Amino acid sequence: MSALKGASAPIHFGSFIVTPQVFLTTPLSFALVNLKPILPGHVLVSPRRVVPRVTDLTPAETSDLFLTVRRVGRMVERVYGASSLNIAVQDGVYAGQSVPHVHAHIIPRKAADLDHRGGTDAVYDLLDGEEGDLAKAYKDAKTGDADKTGDEPANGTDAQTRRSKFPAVDNEQRRPRGEAEMKAEAEMLAREMENEPLD
Amino acid sequence: MSALKGASAPIHFGSFIVTPQVFLTTPLSFALVNLKPILPGHVLVSPRRVVPRVTDLTPAETSDLFLTVRRVGRMVERVYGASSLNIAVQDGVYAGQSVPHVHAHIIPRKAADLDHRGGTDAVYDLLDGEEGDLAKAYKDAKTGDADKTGDEPANGTDAQTRRSKFPAVDNEQRRPRGEAEMKAEAEMLAREMENEPLD
Repeated sequence: MSALKGASAPIHFGSFIVTPQVFLTTPLSFALVNLKPILPGHVLVSPRRVVPRVTDLTPAETSDLFLTVRRVGRMVERVYGASSLNIAVQDGVYAGQSVPHVHAHIIPRKAADLDHRGGTDAVYDLLDGEEGDLAKAYKDAKTGDADKTGDEPANGTDAQTRRSKFPAVDNEQRRPRGEAEMKAEAEMLAREMENEPLD
Repeated sequence: MSALKGASAPIHFGSFIVTPQVFLTTPLSFALVNLKPILPGHVLVSPRRVVPRVTDLTPAETSDLFLTVRRVGRMVERVYGASSLNIAVQDGVYAGQSVPHVHAHIIPRKAADLDHRGGTDAVYDLLDGEEGDLAKAYKDAKTGDADKTGDEPANGTDAQTRRSKFPAVDNEQRRPRGEAEMKAEAEMLAREMENEPLD
């Protein structure tokens, strides 16, 4: 069941069906809410076609993807009361990509939002953890393990680094959300996108 | 003096003139080598128009920018023998942006390239340091301080975090390069772009 009125065919993120999390589709891209957002409004934008690398995209897909990033970024910045955005693509395994389907992270930022977790740039440590566990999190959610805290490290070093910086917040932060919560957010963001200028 | 044949008007990155570092211009964007690359082939792509935020770009500028990112990314990945790319935009001050001119970082990645500095995701700690000091580095270079190690922290917490992880590499890594070295690399990359398919 989709958060989008009139949407029919299931939407894939890698090998996972994410239709209830999708709040926007364009001719060549889609935007979805996150299983484990780093900060409120942390969303992903992907091409409809499941390809691993940016270079695998056609020029038309590349334009559509980043025009969607720009428009969705403006919307989440407004809706979540932020004033900056981190935009990041881990393009390939050796850049930290875990789901082999191009995806841009958009993370709304505001003053001092991560001060209690290590400062502005702590977003990257959190992103590392999130991205490292994205495939695992989707697999857990699929097999009904969505209530697990999911804090087993995919990579001992990363998890240790992260933990030493943000010991208390980490487990709480990284608990995957349930389908109902994600679908409600996707429906809210789908409505907000209707207020967002096309250009 | 430009690394590009036939280029005339000076090219600005924020308030800095970076013409000798530029290896590609398109109708609406340009690509430049980095004063302090995190890894070999770490380059930047910016719109010609000096605006701080992605939302300030027109749709045509957005498309041109990211089509350029895709094409330049493919080129640096090939030339530097990499197999993945980190692509990151710090869009606004609270996302860590220091030069108020939209710029996408492209960082070629390969297996185990940062193992001695903390693993795959150490790129973000290094990016934090680099980005945090980008404005400072350009100011130093402009006033002839390019040979300084530039390791005074812009932000005590970040610098301490970075240092505790990569104490030995940090000072060495973050030494700004000279104009001649950057111009030679820009000339080499300008030639390589000529071999890169347009699409």
